[in-house]
Amino acid sequence: MKIHNFYAGPCILPQEAIDETISALKDFAGTGISLASVSHRSKEFDAVMLEAETLFKELLDIPEGYRVIFLGGGASLQFAMVPFNLMNKKAVYLNTGVWAGKALKEATLFGEVVEIANAPAGDFSQIPTNFTIPTDADYMHITTNNTIYGTEIHRDIDCPIPLVADMSSDILSRPVDVKKYVLIYGGAQKNLAPAGVTFVIVKEAAMGKVNHKIPTMLNYLTHTKEGSMFNTPPVIPVYTALQTLKWIKKEGGVKEMYRRNLEKATLLYNEIDRNKLFKATIQGEDRSLMNICFVMNEEFVSLEKEFLKFVEERGMIGLKGHRNVGGFRASTYNALPKESVQALVDVMQEFEKMKA
Amino acid sequence: MKIHNFYAGPCILPQEAIDETISALKDFAGTGISLASVSHRSKEFDAVMLEAETLFKELLDIPEGYRVIFLGGGASLQFAMVPFNLMNKKAVYLNTGVWAGKALKEATLFGEVVEIANAPAGDFSQIPTNFTIPTDADYMHITTNNTIYGTEIHRDIDCPIPLVADMSSDILSRPVDVKKYVLIYGGAQKNLAPAGVTFVIVKEAAMGKVNHKIPTMLNYLTHTKEGSMFNTPPVIPVYTALQTLKWIKKEGGVKEMYRRNLEKATLLYNEIDRNKLFKATIQGEDRSLMNICFVMNEEFVSLEKEFLKFVEERGMIGLKGHRNVGGFRASTYNALPKESVQALVDVMQEFEKMKA
Repeated sequence: MKIHNFYAGPCILPQEAIDETISALKDFAGTGISLASVSHRSKEFDAVMLEAETLFKELLDIPEGYRVIFLGGGASLQFAMVPFNLMNKKAVYLNTGVWAGKALKEATLFGEVVEIANAPAGDFSQIPTNFTIPTDADYMHITTNNTIYGTEIHRDIDCPIPLVADMSSDILSRPVDVKKYVLIYGGAQKNLAPAGVTFVIVKEAAMGKVNHKIPTMLNYLTHTKEGSMFNTPPVIPVYTALQTLKWIKKEGGVKEMYRRNLEKATLLYNEIDRNKLFKATIQGEDRSLMNICFVMNEEFVSLEKEFLKFVEERGMIGLKGHRNVGGFRASTYNALPKESVQALVDVMQEFEKMKA
Repeated sequence: MKIHNFYAGPCILPQEAIDETISALKDFAGTGISLASVSHRSKEFDAVMLEAETLFKELLDIPEGYRVIFLGGGASLQFAMVPFNLMNKKAVYLNTGVWAGKALKEATLFGEVVEIANAPAGDFSQIPTNFTIPTDADYMHITTNNTIYGTEIHRDIDCPIPLVADMSSDILSRPVDVKKYVLIYGGAQKNLAPAGVTFVIVKEAAMGKVNHKIPTMLNYLTHTKEGSMFNTPPVIPVYTALQTLKWIKKEGGVKEMYRRNLEKATLLYNEIDRNKLFKATIQGEDRSLMNICFVMNEEFVSLEKEFLKFVEERGMIGLKGHRNVGGFRASTYNALPKESVQALVDVMQEFEKMKA
């Protein structure tokens, strides 16, 4: 049975990226040994790291004066690294969901945090609008895609202070105007790589401006100076990341990813809106193109488990919604083919015919 | 040509661990999807994480009251995490080489550091002896194996204050009396796994005693409470680590690893001591069983490059010594078979016949 992988992350990756990784685990770059057993100081792995940075810059059209580094520890470690490196006194956090909230909470260890959020508190059904950004803060932090609730900031906002973005779950899913940011980071385990590597795009001029001491491994300068090789990098996840970047380029780049993601999301949101059994939890322009959340309409809510079983029997995995939202979540990252979305739409219609 | 992998790390791993990883990258635990694409919250990966902790405890005979966790960021991040979690005012560091020195330097950001070292400073040819440990310090930190200079602390020292050990390069190479330590950590990329995962063995009673705030991801309690799943763990390296642990168990456990390591190291040191061309850089009981460093005898020093070429042409890689020491370094980790050491001994004898 064909498996359709709708996991929210770790999640589907391009099959070619996985196949190339398997091939390198057998024999890496003709060295006769496995990628798992090769020195990160070998010229062959050095070339991998260099190409990963170069290709990342090319695909996102990253301007001069920025570096791309690959670290361990996940985006959760970045929640501390960002204020360690950028906050002297005060920072602004746009609280758009669980992950944004975690980043915000971590920053409170380092100084004053101004929270921008919807009223009432805990309403994550839309991205806050009509807010004023205090211009005396060191930076403003946003989380561009809200994996749990299914909202997304679809544009690169104009910000009067340095802008920092967690793009863990929508990096490389659309073109980004990188020059509007001083820092973009993310756990790679959605659109880029297996779990275990974190990318950071950092403006060189933004570093080195804080008054406090930074632990060596938490200082971005440590890693930019050494080309992500200050210590042993996560070799296999970095290698797979490079294969994904190559796949994106071959498929037509980030613009083409965006076209496909828009097409997939439109297909699924249209079906959710049309189908008598379901309703989307997010309305309007903030709907995420990456994580599409929906629930049963009130009169059919008792069918939730049955529908989950119905889709699982048809090879669709990872569709159970996050416990904060309930219902269903279809994650439609870059590597998810349109065929998988179409298959889901088909079973939604089949289920509707049976039940509505 | 058969490749003999003498890299210092990342380095040779059991072929079975690599083969099992490749198999799981094709189809993980019968899920029909790749280990690279499976949710870390799936029941199948949950079982991997649990078994990795359990088997680690079994193999090292870790007593009750300790946890084993798997993190990202490498041992270098532990250099900061150790004082963050354990230092209130003062710590003692045994400076036995480059990595011990880095750990020590990081700790100076957090409080007073008492350094114990050989005189003259920078002499790493033996482990310091006859030192007094200040009993008012929060802990003492040692690095059990000195990868660069090739010395090793072969016993679990009696320490009047809590003992912390970086065992990055000799974990699982010999039995360890874990109850003598409050914390043992290491980057996994020597005897355990591909780069990208760090193990921490921590005594539960040692945590939560410092007066300062700890960033969430740097707090061991964050990870022990969540069974290494507070955030997304490095899935592939953890999986390979589990396969290595299974291989160690199957081969006879840590005692058998120690027997083999002693046998391999004795074979090579004996040849270095006998051969007219070479001499070991370390003498006596502190000789490492993991990293065996040697140079050309003075009258043959001009032959160094020729010997390196000679061994490389015979499939032996990773034998170039670290730039701090020069000459040659043969890393003889658990997974390196005796046959590879014998092959090296054979070419040393062949070269001797040609040149001496």
